[in-house]
Amino acid sequence: MGNNLKFNEKGLIPAIVQDADTGEVLMLGYMNEESIRLTLSSGEVWFYSRSRQELWHKGETSGNRLIVRELWKDCDSDSILVKAKPLGPACHTGNKTCFFQKLTRQDIETSHQEEA
Amino acid sequence: MGNNLKFNEKGLIPAIVQDADTGEVLMLGYMNEESIRLTLSSGEVWFYSRSRQELWHKGETSGNRLIVRELWKDCDSDSILVKAKPLGPACHTGNKTCFFQKLTRQDIETSHQEEA
Repeated sequence: MGNNLKFNEKGLIPAIVQDADTGEVLMLGYMNEESIRLTLSSGEVWFYSRSRQELWHKGETSGNRLIVRELWKDCDSDSILVKAKPLGPACHTGNKTCFFQKLTRQDIETSHQEEA
Repeated sequence: MGNNLKFNEKGLIPAIVQDADTGEVLMLGYMNEESIRLTLSSGEVWFYSRSRQELWHKGETSGNRLIVRELWKDCDSDSILVKAKPLGPACHTGNKTCFFQKLTRQDIETSHQEEA
């Protein structure tokens, strides 16, 4: 069926989290099927941590959990948009959003210097 | 350097596109280093098409190009947020956004039925 979610070769699908009230994009995480199931049943965002290779209840330790308002999938069913109410800063740095650094030409140039 | 962009094993990095005026999340695409360079130099969004395996100037054919306002990277430097002005519907279906379908328990249950 064309409507099924498409997971990548690692069984993951990228999930964008957006603040449901302000519209601010907070972070991009990855979900596997089980974390989607937990997100749907608990009403809080669960990811799959690629570094720790385990299910990750966002904010479980910090308290900065993400309360789900709406879940959307895209036209190709290979990415997810979560509209959520954040209970605190979404970023582990303490920033409200993980997107707090501008991307500049420097970001590309630097990687070239490393190759030299 | 910790600030360098981190591309995945296919040389790609996910890029969220958000309408700079309305805050609406429009789509998720993938960029390689060259498409980031083209995006920075042209001021319009270039992706790398995973299906066609080629650089993809978003909206080149349809005219629905994305004019870049701001480019951000996340705390881990492994995802990008593009704030852009869309010249038309971002989705190939004609919808303003690719995220026009709700994600429900059905999306998970269906894939289980297929395994049966």
